[in-house]
Amino acid sequence: MTEKNKSQRIVIALGGNALQSGGGRITAEDQLAVVRQTCRHIAEITCMGHEIAIVHGNGPQVGRILLATETAKDITPPMPFDVCGAMSQGYIGYHIQQSLKYALNLKNKNVPVVTVATQMVVEEADPAFQNPTKPIGPFYTEEEARALEAEKGYVMREDAGRGWRRVVASPLPRKIVEIDAVKRLWDSTIVITCGGGGIPVLERPDGTLEGVAAVIDKDFAAELLAEQVEADILMILTEVEKVAINFNKPDQKDLSVLNLSDAARYAAEGHFAPGSMLPKVEAAMKFVRSNPTKRAIITSLDKSLEALEGTAGTVITFA
Amino acid sequence: MTEKNKSQRIVIALGGNALQSGGGRITAEDQLAVVRQTCRHIAEITCMGHEIAIVHGNGPQVGRILLATETAKDITPPMPFDVCGAMSQGYIGYHIQQSLKYALNLKNKNVPVVTVATQMVVEEADPAFQNPTKPIGPFYTEEEARALEAEKGYVMREDAGRGWRRVVASPLPRKIVEIDAVKRLWDSTIVITCGGGGIPVLERPDGTLEGVAAVIDKDFAAELLAEQVEADILMILTEVEKVAINFNKPDQKDLSVLNLSDAARYAAEGHFAPGSMLPKVEAAMKFVRSNPTKRAIITSLDKSLEALEGTAGTVITFA
Repeated sequence: MTEKNKSQRIVIALGGNALQSGGGRITAEDQLAVVRQTCRHIAEITCMGHEIAIVHGNGPQVGRILLATETAKDITPPMPFDVCGAMSQGYIGYHIQQSLKYALNLKNKNVPVVTVATQMVVEEADPAFQNPTKPIGPFYTEEEARALEAEKGYVMREDAGRGWRRVVASPLPRKIVEIDAVKRLWDSTIVITCGGGGIPVLERPDGTLEGVAAVIDKDFAAELLAEQVEADILMILTEVEKVAINFNKPDQKDLSVLNLSDAARYAAEGHFAPGSMLPKVEAAMKFVRSNPTKRAIITSLDKSLEALEGTAGTVITFA
Repeated sequence: MTEKNKSQRIVIALGGNALQSGGGRITAEDQLAVVRQTCRHIAEITCMGHEIAIVHGNGPQVGRILLATETAKDITPPMPFDVCGAMSQGYIGYHIQQSLKYALNLKNKNVPVVTVATQMVVEEADPAFQNPTKPIGPFYTEEEARALEAEKGYVMREDAGRGWRRVVASPLPRKIVEIDAVKRLWDSTIVITCGGGGIPVLERPDGTLEGVAAVIDKDFAAELLAEQVEADILMILTEVEKVAINFNKPDQKDLSVLNLSDAARYAAEGHFAPGSMLPKVEAAMKFVRSNPTKRAIITSLDKSLEALEGTAGTVITFA
């Protein structure tokens, strides 16, 4: 193998478009159809000889689970948000492991694929808890919102004239509870882990873990995983082939290589949209800052193979 | 170690009472409280030096997930039953792995605990598919039921004057799709697998797995797992300490030991309730029939330690 084709340990973070396409009433069957396509690409990466783990987002899915359970709350008790996250890991992981296994079989590649339910420790002192920003679940009237604040201690915010919604914090991921098992599986098995950024838990002084209503960024979770399994590459897959500056402007410039200092400058100049490209670039920066000899790649699913060969996507490097 | 205290490989099947107590509106918080108690017992078994894997039921949980998603179907698309099963594995597995890890930490036992989303192959030719018997989800009027039969191909049955419900098959579990990963984890890790009997899937001729609406008996799933990991003991935990004949009658007789031929005779005589003790005894019989030198144990959670020492519960043996 040439250096370029050497087997690499890769953590792949799958964005929303790898799981669903379009908007509106997306069914589980719609998701499965998209996931099957996605897994053909991922199988190709495995067949190049790379070892991978998969992290996926869960925003729309956990949103729908919460919406269903809140809508049905007079019929059956509503699920807390951490449990909704655990349910979304089961749901999405099942689709990915089923589809990826099939895609690998088609290539005569017999590798086990499993989803590991994964808890992620966040810190109560995280400043994000002082300023919850992520809207989740259904819309309420102001009166209902005030009642929920009083009864359940939720933080409710008016949402751009559309009604009131619960908002939760988006703290940084600090510790992957199931990391030992993920490491033990790594060499032999493709592991789907940290789904939706992980099920957020607080660690009490006595060691008890306790679920908490929070939204963890899946790119930061993937970054933490990549550090802990000593991955060679953090690969963040999204809708665009390359990171760009002046995005969607006449002078948009796509970037093939982005080093830390340029990335920091562009981020400060506001080139990357918060909640979209910015966390991806930040996660990539964090990975190469911790591992100066390694690289992060941001690209689209259909360019992922070329990106690994260095002919597509944006590679984020230390210098 | 004496023979009695030798480290054993044990597959533990947890019944509904290990996850929930009482009836009515059981919340996730209620479940967590029961699971925490359950995990104290399981931690004791691990601390005796045994290696374990855990299989759990999911009847009430998947029922509530289905009820919520069907109730909210005009707000957000309802989830197919296989996906509900995957969600229940995430939900219940999360609670068990969190609680068991804590219970082990209290005993300074640092063993990883993970939930593996698990698919179970069932066969389309299974006679159970010709005669679906398991009611799932909400009650409907006859008119609604007829519409669902026409629109979705559901099989609907009138349920003892309470309305109409969908019924699905309860086929035998045939193949644990993720068995390789479970085996690789076994030596180092407590694995929670085959939750709810596994997510039922059919295997198409081209190798595609396809989710199917079915209910798999978790005791039979645990039995299959125990065979495949070459467990020494299949331990089925339920509400009673011992299997009994003439159960709940004046001449009830609790059994400490039950060999295959007696078990078959008692089963034929109707001593074991279908859907309750009968599948447990049948699963135990299947295990010792396949492994004549090994044993199955049926007992209650709080007698599990004594049962392993041979001073409680019912042990099912080949001869």
